[in-house]
Amino acid sequence: MGNERIRLAHGSGGRLSHDLIEQVFAPRFSNAILDRMDDAAVLEITGYRPEDRPEGFTSDSQLPTSGLPGKLAFTTDSYVVSPTTFPGGDIGKLAVCGTVNDLAMGGARPLYLSAGFIIEEGLPMDELEGIVDSMARTAKQAHVAIVTGDTKVVGRGQADRVFINTAGVGIVPPEVTVSGRNARPGDIVLVSGTLGDHGMAILTQREGLQFTSPLASDCAPLNGLVEAIFASLRSTGDGCCEADVHCLRDPTRGGLVTAIKELALASEVGVELDESSIPIGDAVRAACELLGLDPLYVANEGKLIALVAPGVAQRVLAAMRRHPYGGDAAAIGEVTSGRAGQVVIRTELGAKRIANMLTGEQLPRIC
Amino acid sequence: MGNERIRLAHGSGGRLSHDLIEQVFAPRFSNAILDRMDDAAVLEITGYRPEDRPEGFTSDSQLPTSGLPGKLAFTTDSYVVSPTTFPGGDIGKLAVCGTVNDLAMGGARPLYLSAGFIIEEGLPMDELEGIVDSMARTAKQAHVAIVTGDTKVVGRGQADRVFINTAGVGIVPPEVTVSGRNARPGDIVLVSGTLGDHGMAILTQREGLQFTSPLASDCAPLNGLVEAIFASLRSTGDGCCEADVHCLRDPTRGGLVTAIKELALASEVGVELDESSIPIGDAVRAACELLGLDPLYVANEGKLIALVAPGVAQRVLAAMRRHPYGGDAAAIGEVTSGRAGQVVIRTELGAKRIANMLTGEQLPRIC
Repeated sequence: MGNERIRLAHGSGGRLSHDLIEQVFAPRFSNAILDRMDDAAVLEITGYRPEDRPEGFTSDSQLPTSGLPGKLAFTTDSYVVSPTTFPGGDIGKLAVCGTVNDLAMGGARPLYLSAGFIIEEGLPMDELEGIVDSMARTAKQAHVAIVTGDTKVVGRGQADRVFINTAGVGIVPPEVTVSGRNARPGDIVLVSGTLGDHGMAILTQREGLQFTSPLASDCAPLNGLVEAIFASLRSTGDGCCEADVHCLRDPTRGGLVTAIKELALASEVGVELDESSIPIGDAVRAACELLGLDPLYVANEGKLIALVAPGVAQRVLAAMRRHPYGGDAAAIGEVTSGRAGQVVIRTELGAKRIANMLTGEQLPRIC
Repeated sequence: MGNERIRLAHGSGGRLSHDLIEQVFAPRFSNAILDRMDDAAVLEITGYRPEDRPEGFTSDSQLPTSGLPGKLAFTTDSYVVSPTTFPGGDIGKLAVCGTVNDLAMGGARPLYLSAGFIIEEGLPMDELEGIVDSMARTAKQAHVAIVTGDTKVVGRGQADRVFINTAGVGIVPPEVTVSGRNARPGDIVLVSGTLGDHGMAILTQREGLQFTSPLASDCAPLNGLVEAIFASLRSTGDGCCEADVHCLRDPTRGGLVTAIKELALASEVGVELDESSIPIGDAVRAACELLGLDPLYVANEGKLIALVAPGVAQRVLAAMRRHPYGGDAAAIGEVTSGRAGQVVIRTELGAKRIANMLTGEQLPRIC
């Protein structure tokens, strides 16, 4: 890629983002954990072997009495959304939810976050304080603690107000086995609610558009919803278990289709979606029609996709609908043994079309 | 701080950075781990309790057989250095070393890093590839794996080329107890080598200055040096142990004095430094004199300060000097029962002066 230059679409979450990762990052950083390309890395912590202990310190009583009952999940995202405040949230809320959600999509219980700020000289202090308040409030709601951080300041015109990076650490219970590579033919595709709300809220705020129904971001921490899904599969007495949830993913940049396509590629399966069953709010549908956008490619920040074994689909769907963030959950398709990575959409008229990854940059700086 | 605006000096690592943390971040994010204000957060992972296990999964054989023999360290830093390439390194090398070093200063063995890129539209792809190559090479040298990442692209003029955030996870062996709050009167202050090299290399590169002796950044991963320090205290047969190392810190932004002052404040002790014993290279000394800078406030990226019990100081110093990154190590002062947070410098003429935290921004975007 030597003679190219970075384009906005390299940050879209679509085709060019995929190429950038495949051609620049993955070959250079390659290792067994990164190569899985899941939203969160799942780590086996085996760094300190008993035989490394010095001779004076061999008593077992000096080791912690309880070990790590599960694997560690680790993830990061930077947030550059513009404007920094929008209906339904702000960059601070987004920075906590986004990373909590990536951990939750790895099947982890999010525990700890870091926060790294890059601030443009001249940012009003009260704007920063508002963002930090929002992060603190959202962290409390998501039951995570922000435990370490960093602040950098760059000159005017060297950044745009404020960028935030959060990284997160969580624990994956031993029974949970979700991974982007676990989808199997026959799995049911569930989505936790209406699509496109975040992206359309940002876009209309940015462009100063007004619609009769107000658009608001769906930005929310989804770890509670994930916990409710797993809880619905425990102690059922009929052999269901957490491992029946094969994949979880939050359809952020690139929207539903990009997320589904990534899962299909990673699992080497096909997916068929039923367009008429995909929940989309009236305001989002109207705004998308007006602006010529496809809501299936618009970003979400408070929705998840679950690919589950067919036998547990109704149970999981019911659990999602009982949760405050899953009221509009729906079954929208199934995994097939079709061509690996191919996503087919059955239209309302019964025709089928092949859905591709987003190619241009639909909305820059959406998250 | 409501009516203020962010100034460059809020990112200096000095007085205003300290105020920003104390007044904006700490009160809002407050929790027992963050409040320790160490370079890396040390976490107790107890998230998944045995009683949470579902009934079908109670066999112990389904739990991992080896637990977590130590505590987890977690840290983050964003890197905004300008220019992105400089004598002795680049932003990629810095982004790996800085976070590896923060983990090592927490007494941890660094294991895993995340990498978050914020890229300005138009960045030449080969420049990005060079930076990513450098990160991969440095990670290999430091024995850490980059396991998760994120890329955002912002428009021209909304960032300056590329900013990188890395977060890191490591394990703290149970015998290690370093913390910024552990300094005790009588402790010896050791430094691992010459001071000011990184800051002066960046500054002279940025300003196009030429000196007869070339200046190069000291940017290096220090986990091997920390390991050598701890190894020198094991199995000594005379009662020394890792716990005799009370504090470790890398004097980055704000330089030696700022780092020492932070330790003195956190530990509620005084520190007295002997100016003539502080190692400073001839080229750095000459450049600082020419530019009117104090090398004790200039940033380092490959040096550490260790505050150790007096009985082990010679042993630790010898171990540092045997290591490739500690050849110029020196004992430069001692911890006193003087006024909490006060750092006194004995000048070469025998006078004493009180050293304060950096107040302005000496060199913006140094790391």
